Amino acid sequence: MKDFIIIGNKAVSGGKISLNDLPGSAGRMDVLCRCVTAALFISFGMRRDVNVWLILKGGPEPEKIVRFCGETMRSLNPDERSSGSLIQKALMIEANDTEKQSTPGVFVRHGDLTRLLDKFTEENRPLFYLKEDGEDILELIRTDAAALENGVYILGDNQGVFEEDEKTIENAGASKISIGPISLLSSQCVTLILNALDRTAANE
Amino acid sequence: MKDFIIIGNKAVSGGKISLNDLPGSAGRMDVLCRCVTAALFISFGMRRDVNVWLILKGGPEPEKIVRFCGETMRSLNPDERSSGSLIQKALMIEANDTEKQSTPGVFVRHGDLTRLLDKFTEENRPLFYLKEDGEDILELIRTDAAALENGVYILGDNQGVFEEDEKTIENAGASKISIGPISLLSSQCVTLILNALDRTAANE
Repeated sequence: MKDFIIIGNKAVSGGKISLNDLPGSAGRMDVLCRCVTAALFISFGMRRDVNVWLILKGGPEPEKIVRFCGETMRSLNPDERSSGSLIQKALMIEANDTEKQSTPGVFVRHGDLTRLLDKFTEENRPLFYLKEDGEDILELIRTDAAALENGVYILGDNQGVFEEDEKTIENAGASKISIGPISLLSSQCVTLILNALDRTAANE
Repeated sequence: MKDFIIIGNKAVSGGKISLNDLPGSAGRMDVLCRCVTAALFISFGMRRDVNVWLILKGGPEPEKIVRFCGETMRSLNPDERSSGSLIQKALMIEANDTEKQSTPGVFVRHGDLTRLLDKFTEENRPLFYLKEDGEDILELIRTDAAALENGVYILGDNQGVFEEDEKTIENAGASKISIGPISLLSSQCVTLILNALDRTAANE
């Protein structure tokens, strides 16, 4: 199982989202949509062993987490508007602290990064924080493939990860990893992580 | 210099494109838009040494080639709608056999794969065809990094590459390469190729 947490610093947690303007109306929701596509899609199918957790920090409602679950996902296409539409629907139902399914494979609840990382820590899942000065995933995978294959990967959006969240991530004991010499889009990082894992799995 | 050729089997070459329905109204133009983003964007900037050539084979007008030129690109954002809008504008001007600039960094002309590959062959550019049974790029890059760094990469869209185009590519002498054990979206392949090149350049 692989989990990707994407921190949407400005991504709205309610109100009207215009699918015609995901970057502007929804707080760069396009960044999060691209991450969903990168994490769940392969050429002729879907990665059933992947979850994507979108943390929507941009208000106006309390912080929410929208989860895209590869295992049960239906009605998702790779274009940004498709995942944007499912996020829109998730934000239309009344959320509380318990996950509710808004459409098949998409879940929503109130929540924040601290609580989410607590959950994964309780499950003994290894946490990895994508950061330019982290250890190269291609090096790390040679020595600790098992951890990476069961990893929870934490990524920022176009604004990166702010100090408070970074402290939360560090306190949770996440290891810093990088995907190469150039800082890339969050969605590109997701693609590179999964490819490294695909290659390792194929060689086992 | 790196060039990416994406074959849009159903991508429309004219008529009305709805930016609200790039997959349906424009013949899976979303696939091509994602390739543009994957090829040109890094986290805080643009790859100025990359061109993306979109071959629009879906009619109703004669086949066209829209080129996104990293060197001179302006007014492009990473969301699909942004590149879709520039393609829409490119298709609104009257095309002929000579490239015309429709917006800064975007060019359009009539043309097809054969003619495009002829151009690159005349320029002695090495051609690489993305194909599942090709040589792994991470192997090839160890022995022939120089060719890859100056490569022209040919990719299909969600339908792949049809037999006629495949013959054209083989006749042009392209080498088959692959990006790993699992067949991925065209845009994901672009990301993986560029990351392999970034890594090699950083080690030189």
